[in-house]
Order: sequence, then structure tokens, then C-alpha cells
Amino acid sequence: MTIDKIKLVPLGGLGEIGKNMMVVEYGNDIIIVDVGVMFPDEEMYGVDLVIPDVSYLADKKHRIRGVLITHGHEDHVGSLPYILPLLDFPPVYSTRLTQGLINIKLKEHRLIDKVELNVIAPGDEVKLGACTAGFFRVNHSIPDAVGIMLNTPIGTVVHTGDYKFDYTPVDGKPADIGLLGKIGNDGVLIMMGDSTRVETPGYTPSERVINDSFDKIFANAPGRILLATFASLISRVQQVVDTALRYDRVVAFAGRSMQNNVQMAIELGYLNMPKGMLVRVEDINKFRPEQVVIVCTGSQGEPTSALTRIANQDHRQIRIQPGDSVILSATPVPGNEKSVSRTINSLFRQGAEVYYQGISNVHVSGHAAQEELKLMLSLLRPRFFMPVHGEYRHLVLHAKLAYSLGIPEENIVVAENGDIIEVTEDSIKLTDHVASGNVFVDGLSVGDVGQIVLRDRKVLSQDGILMVVLTMDRETGEPLAGPDIVSRGFVYMRDAEELLESARLRVLEALRGMGHNARSGSDWSFVKDKIKQTLGEYLYEQTHRRPMILPVVMEV
Amino acid sequence: MTIDKIKLVPLGGLGEIGKNMMVVEYGNDIIIVDVGVMFPDEEMYGVDLVIPDVSYLADKKHRIRGVLITHGHEDHVGSLPYILPLLDFPPVYSTRLTQGLINIKLKEHRLIDKVELNVIAPGDEVKLGACTAGFFRVNHSIPDAVGIMLNTPIGTVVHTGDYKFDYTPVDGKPADIGLLGKIGNDGVLIMMGDSTRVETPGYTPSERVINDSFDKIFANAPGRILLATFASLISRVQQVVDTALRYDRVVAFAGRSMQNNVQMAIELGYLNMPKGMLVRVEDINKFRPEQVVIVCTGSQGEPTSALTRIANQDHRQIRIQPGDSVILSATPVPGNEKSVSRTINSLFRQGAEVYYQGISNVHVSGHAAQEELKLMLSLLRPRFFMPVHGEYRHLVLHAKLAYSLGIPEENIVVAENGDIIEVTEDSIKLTDHVASGNVFVDGLSVGDVGQIVLRDRKVLSQDGILMVVLTMDRETGEPLAGPDIVSRGFVYMRDAEELLESARLRVLEALRGMGHNARSGSDWSFVKDKIKQTLGEYLYEQTHRRPMILPVVMEV
Repeated sequence: MTIDKIKLVPLGGLGEIGKNMMVVEYGNDIIIVDVGVMFPDEEMYGVDLVIPDVSYLADKKHRIRGVLITHGHEDHVGSLPYILPLLDFPPVYSTRLTQGLINIKLKEHRLIDKVELNVIAPGDEVKLGACTAGFFRVNHSIPDAVGIMLNTPIGTVVHTGDYKFDYTPVDGKPADIGLLGKIGNDGVLIMMGDSTRVETPGYTPSERVINDSFDKIFANAPGRILLATFASLISRVQQVVDTALRYDRVVAFAGRSMQNNVQMAIELGYLNMPKGMLVRVEDINKFRPEQVVIVCTGSQGEPTSALTRIANQDHRQIRIQPGDSVILSATPVPGNEKSVSRTINSLFRQGAEVYYQGISNVHVSGHAAQEELKLMLSLLRPRFFMPVHGEYRHLVLHAKLAYSLGIPEENIVVAENGDIIEVTEDSIKLTDHVASGNVFVDGLSVGDVGQIVLRDRKVLSQDGILMVVLTMDRETGEPLAGPDIVSRGFVYMRDAEELLESARLRVLEALRGMGHNARSGSDWSFVKDKIKQTLGEYLYEQTHRRPMILPVVMEV
Repeated sequence: MTIDKIKLVPLGGLGEIGKNMMVVEYGNDIIIVDVGVMFPDEEMYGVDLVIPDVSYLADKKHRIRGVLITHGHEDHVGSLPYILPLLDFPPVYSTRLTQGLINIKLKEHRLIDKVELNVIAPGDEVKLGACTAGFFRVNHSIPDAVGIMLNTPIGTVVHTGDYKFDYTPVDGKPADIGLLGKIGNDGVLIMMGDSTRVETPGYTPSERVINDSFDKIFANAPGRILLATFASLISRVQQVVDTALRYDRVVAFAGRSMQNNVQMAIELGYLNMPKGMLVRVEDINKFRPEQVVIVCTGSQGEPTSALTRIANQDHRQIRIQPGDSVILSATPVPGNEKSVSRTINSLFRQGAEVYYQGISNVHVSGHAAQEELKLMLSLLRPRFFMPVHGEYRHLVLHAKLAYSLGIPEENIVVAENGDIIEVTEDSIKLTDHVASGNVFVDGLSVGDVGQIVLRDRKVLSQDGILMVVLTMDRETGEPLAGPDIVSRGFVYMRDAEELLESARLRVLEALRGMGHNARSGSDWSFVKDKIKQTLGEYLYEQTHRRPMILPVVMEV
């Protein structure tokens, strides 16, 4: 019996920016594209990382033929160390640089020996059950990025991955338009396309335009140059190295992930530096300021990154000195605007000249703008289209764009994480919805922080906590000690003695007002509820704040 | 004896966006320009508002001759209800619309009878001690905005307030370039200029350009139009009303501050609406969808605002229905990007067509871009220049801009809040620094939330809290009850029974290991410290989290 449909199950990246993960099912075969991570937003108090919920795959592990990775950014590979163990370590396929980045990650998690990592190159084919995966080169803000085509018995599925078209990329390898044209000519059943930058008209400029800006800055910089960018943006690092070479400057790298990635990229041949040009951060003072470039992490204002430490005068080796020029070669990821802004202000305050996107052309996006999205859709001419990688508004706008190019409305699906989309040769529909969403990594634990813990953290963060501790006589139900009141994050206790004392008296009064029976319930829940209610009302009336109130009753 | 110097003391708005407040001192006279508020950033947990620290003025209240207000935005008037009482209610001077907005605010705080509010118009002069204040019309994203010139015996001080040059403003009243030229010709000793938009090259477009966008949207909208903007942006509201009139739509207003401001603006003649065009939100269903416009608050994604409630399907009267078009006629204030984004996504999800800055031309800034900043500097040609209203980077860039126009470096001061700047006829210098900074409003209290409470809230928000409660025998130092452990925001207690039980055992063990004397110290501080240390280490080892640990010991 031939199977006449494909199932697509997005487990991340639809309706959000981050943790991209797409499940493609044909019959008994499951193929996964990307296993990314998302960084917590401000409502996810104390959470370190957000990974996809893969409970949908729990009873289907044996059917997973492979995990295909489009490129080495965190939002495409970052959850591998958490998710691969849950899926019994299916084989992973990626290009060489991507593998290098995954390796670093797996080593940190001591998983390197458990994972089968296969290197593929654009043009390669991999047999995965009844399907065959192929890879086409695209451009992105990292070298060695590919999109994926999956030949299934009922038609070709294309997943673009993150992409843009750069006709003059830094590594000299433009997106393979010829192959994309051929794939389109051969016929595409369904295309899933990156929607991140659908709001921007026109074309995303080539990485090459940054060279001019770097040239201008390097030509005029009187002292050292510090440049912060994403640690994975190897092509940007290459541009800095090339410019430094022209201006006779040595280059040092600061920040652990930058150092790791650079070393790996040099070893694999993705970063080319003449011998002697790379110096250690410890040695930069052996050179005159105008001979030095420092490439570092911290373009997002991350608290423990190199540039943030430098800006906070908290870096072990590097202090801003007069004449320093600092380049932030990145744009703030949404949510990071304030921390980036703080970094820039601190650097200016210490006398540095600061160049950043907005006043200087020192970054370009890695994602396709509208005209490139149209180009991709026109090359592939898919029968069905499903926008991926984007908040809901991006998906809607990308769908509209596809519609404007002639794809019928009924052939376009705007789906979200957990939707099951069934595609046959002549139909596409949303048939079901399965568990999906956010699993939180906090410290060593994965998944134990849920809505209740987060809600508590939120309440605590707003108005703090107030504890009421009582020791009661088990027999008589009379208080033997307390109530004692302790609070944190509510009021400054030393200045609020009067308020807290009168709160204490209210509790005593309330206890006295309770009947003996109510007081001596076996779990003291009446007493606790009474305390909560009494204090909640009193404190709100006095302060208009609502601290968490936590009564603790001990029995003696 | 003639006094030969002016003192400038910025108490807010320098090195930050918000809570603008400038103190100008000449001899015994103090004049204050603006008394604004700032909205808390994500590090100010649970804080409602941030107001300037005016302790510098505590012993100088009797010298304050007046408070001059440039315009009615929150970051210029929002702290009046908190600060005026601290300064013994000095007289306030503002234009008519600004006064209307201040009135609404003072009524809410039941202060309206205590404040002397004087209405001034551009061109008026007000005698303030030895100085005379004059006012010149500027354009901004609110009508009736003025800049201030203060004639002192040693020269003229100009404060631009927030401004841009709009040659075709909605209210037909462009900035008074003629007067500015005259002021410049007469000679300006020092100018303080708005730096907010110094990063943007060129000119800020006229408010008028929005009309075209509105026209296009109104012409094609199949159903209702909802438009969210700042409640104080009366000229934008006028534009919506004018467009609605052309397309035969009635207008309803949603959101308390929008309704209050609109009513006041109509009464004062700043908003013109034909009779019958204004309908109540309750009545919109009496009209066909294509006859309705709803103007509402919520352009910043504020949790309790009208549009946010609508997006969350939580508004009492308004639900998104098919065919609705929603216009966000505002850009997100830094820090609000995520909440605005959430609102847009929710509206799309419910099937609305959403127009917002980035995909549609529905907002223009109220601040001068580089060419306008140059125009202002060229009109006024001040001897000394001090950039105001901006983060540190904006101030630095504005200073560079002034330098590029020929103002000598030594005549420009980049100052921050609390700096004292002394200006004589031929010198400017930073002479001292006084207390300044953030005072937090949280609920009913002003100023009681300080660094300690905030630090506690931060810790609580990250990893929660764990309380250890013990009842000890006063005589023997032996535990009579407990230790009991209660936690919130740390782990989900039901799933962590094992961890908490073994934490409990650790505490008992630690107690047993302590000598009798250590245990029975009068304040139990040894016991508490031991518990903190033991549990801190154990819990970090087990979870890599650092909850706040709070031991409570009761004596019986």
C-alpha cells in the first residue's frame, strides 16, 4: 500500500523567534529538521534556556531516521544536548562548520561519544527510510548554511532554513540559485520558508558592504579597535581579520565562545589568518594601541560576556583607554535593546569612540527581505506553502506575500507549534494539534520549572514575600511563640517596623477571634487562611502592594 | 553686588530617557524646567514609577520662583503630583493644553486646589525674581509645546524642550523660526537642547505624511478601524477624526486616559469634532462595522490598556471581529518592544488586519533629527551648549554635532544628572555633583523601595525562596519542632519532596554537629548562619540554583 500523505509537525519556531524544530513524517519514517534553543523572555523569571517539548516523539523514537541541521546557530542546534538523549540519539547530519560548532556543544555536555555526527556537503544525498534528503547552499550570517530538500514518494518537501541571497558573500560561496531553479523545475510539493525578515522591503545588503565601514573606521582609529559580534559569525570575523591585515594590526580574541569557535574555524579552514597575526589577550600590551584589534563576545550585552565586562570595568585583562574605538557589529536581538544600550553608554562614558548599527553601517541581517523571499518562492514554485521561523505576524505577512505571487489561498497554511499539517499530492490541511511549547532549563534541571514556579517568581519579583511563623500548642491550640513576621522584597524591614508590628497585632487579633476548634484543625489550614486573608487586606490597604503571604504553623 | 554666574543642576533626563527636570539658579532665584516621570525598566522589579530625587532642593524651597513646563507628556509633567508637595507648591506655568493635561493629573491626586497653575502663551513673558521667562512655539508630538528662554542679568538661557520643526503641522502652528532667529541674534549665553533623536540623519517627516497612510487604510478597510496611539497625542487624534469624517465614520474612544484627554481637548478647543460624530463605545454596535472608528490606548502594549485587553479578548465591550483593521500609530518606547509585538501577534491571530510602524507609515517621531538639530543650533548660535534629554550616547553625539557646527569643544559640556554646571559670561564648567537619581514609587509609598528591596526582589525572581523554620527550646537549645521547609519559586514542591526532605535532614545533621553553646546563642544567629551555609551549598550542588534561604527560629 502506498502512503499518500506527509505529516508536518512543527515543534518550535512557528509563532516565535527561536527553538526551530520541524518534524516531517512519511509513513513509518520521521525526519527532523533543526533542534534549536530559545532564550528566555522577561516573563520567564530565572530560566536559563527554553527548549522544545518533544513529548509528541516519545513513542516514535524508533521511527526517527535522522536529524538534519541547516546551520550552526543556537536557535537551530542549541537544544541538541537536551533533546538527543530524549530521542535515543538518532544520527545527525550537518555541514562541516556546523558539525564543528555542534562538537563544541556536545563536548561541553559530555555527550560527544554518544552522538553519530555525519558530515554532508551541499549536493550530497542521504537515504532516510523511504525518503532521500538533499542539501542546497544558502547564504546566512554564518558560513556553511544549507536548505533541505526531502524527496518523498509523493513529492518534494523543501525547508529553506534561515537564508538570504548574497551574490558577493565573504566566503565566495553564493546561494546555489541554479540548483534551486532545478528543484523548482522538477516540482516542489511543499515549501517551508524562513519568515524572519518579511517586514523589510527590498533586499538585504551583501555582507560585503560592511567592508567599507570597517575600512573607514580602521583608517581613522587612533588607538585600539575592539569589535564585538556573535561568536558564530565566522564570516564577520574573517572580514575583521582581512581589514586588520590591511592596516597592520594583530588580532586577539576575547570571550570563551569566541575563542572556541575561532580555534575550531581555523582548524577546519573556515577562518584564514596569516601566522603571527593571532595574539593572546594577555599579550596585547606588547603592541602599540594602533597595532591591535580585539574581537570579542558581548554584542548583545550579555552579562558575563567580554564586552559587557569591559564596559563594566570588570574584565580581567582589558580596560577601555583613551583612543579606543569599539564596534558593535550586530543588532540587538529583540529583548536585548536595553542591555546593549547600557553597554554603549558605558563605553562612551569611559571615553571610547563607539560605532553601532544606527549610526554606522557595521552589521547586515542574515535573513531574506521581501524581494529575496519572492525570489525563493519564484525559484521553487511550490504547490503548497507554509511559512516558518517567525512570530505569528511574520507568518501571516509571509503567507500574504506568497499569495501575492499567485499561490492560491487554500494552498497556504499558517500553522503554529504543535499543529499537525497533512499534505497529500493535492491538498494541505491542519488536522490536529499535539502537545508542544516551552520546556525550561534552569540550572541542572530540565522541565521541572513550570507555570506554578514561574507564577510564584513573578509575584515574588513584584512585591516580595511576607512570612508569618507561629508555634502552636498541639493540645490547646494556643500560640506558644510568635507570630513572627519576616519579609523580603516587600518593604525595607528596618524602616517598616511600625507596619510589621501592627501586622503582627492583626494576626494575633484574628487568632483570638477564631473559635478553638477552627484553630486546632489538624493541618492548621483555617488558621493559615485566616492569616492570609487578614494580612492581605491590611497590607494592601496600607501600601497598595500585594506581597506573597506565607503562614507557617509549627506544632509543639 | 552683581552675581556673575548661573548654576544649572539637571535632576533628571541626562543620561537617561525620561523624568526630565532641570534646575536653573541665578543668585537667590531658582527656576525649574519640567518635572517628568520615568517608567521603570526591567531591573526595577515591581516599581510603578520613577521620579527625580529632589533632595538637592530640600533647603532651597523658598527660593523657587516657578516651575515652567514645556509640554504635557508624562516625561515632562508626570512627577508634578509627587514633587510639588515636596517643594511647598511653587507656581507652575504652562500653555493651555498642557495645563489641561496637568489638571487631569492633579485631580486624580486630589491636589488641584493646592497648586497655582498659570497659563502662558508663546510670546508671553513672566517675571521670576531677577529673571524673565519667555516662551517660543516648537513642534512636537503633542500640540501647544514650547521651548523656554530665560533672560538673566548675565545672559539668555535657552531650553528647547522636546522639539522638531514641522512646516505643516496638523494644528497649523509651525515652530516659531522667526522668534528663534531673533533670540539668536540677540545673543544666547547657553542653550540646552533635546538629544533624543540625534542618531537619525536628515529630517523627521511632518505629521502630515501620516494622512496619506490613513487615507489608504480607511479607503480599503472593509470593517471597523481600531487605532491605538498615545492618549496625549491630540494632533494624531485630530488626524484620525478628520480622516473618519471624509469616510463617513463615527468615532468612539476607549481607555480612561484617552477619554479624559479627548474630553478636555474638545472643551479647550484643541480637538475639533462635528456634533454627532463622537459616539460612546457602548453604542458602536448600533452602526455598521464600516461606519466605525475606535481610538484607544494601548499602543505600548501596557497590560491594562484598551488595545491590550482587546488583543487578550479581555475587554468588556470590544472583541476583534472578521474585517477589523487595527492601526498602531506609535512606535514602541525602548523596553516595550516585546509587549507591543505580543499585541500585534494576538490581533493577527484573531483575524484582524494590523498596520504598524515597520510595515506601514503610521507614525512619525516628535523629535528633531540631525538636520533639525543643526537648524536649531544655527538659529540660536549659543556661546555655550549642553545637550539634554538623552542617554549618555545621545548626549555625546549631540555634543559632537554642535562641535561640527563650530562651537568650541571647551564651550560644550556633557553633563549627567546631579552635576552642577556653572556658567559665567565667558566660561562653563562642571563644579560639583549632588545627590540625584531614581526615587521609586511603588503602590502608595514614594521612596521606601531602595536598593535592598530591589536586590531581594531580583534574587526572588531568579530562583525563588526557601524558608527553614525551627522551634527551639530556649533552655536546652534542642529543636522542639521542625525544621520545616517551605519554598516558593524554587522548585515545584510536589515534585521535589525528595530534595526537600534530604535538605531537611542536612539541616538536622548540621544542628546536631553544633556545640550546645553555639546553638543557644541569644539571637540564634549561629544556627541561622549554619543553616544558610549548609543548605546553600547543598542546593546549589543538587540544582545549580541559588534560592534565597531564610531560616526562622522560634523559641519556646
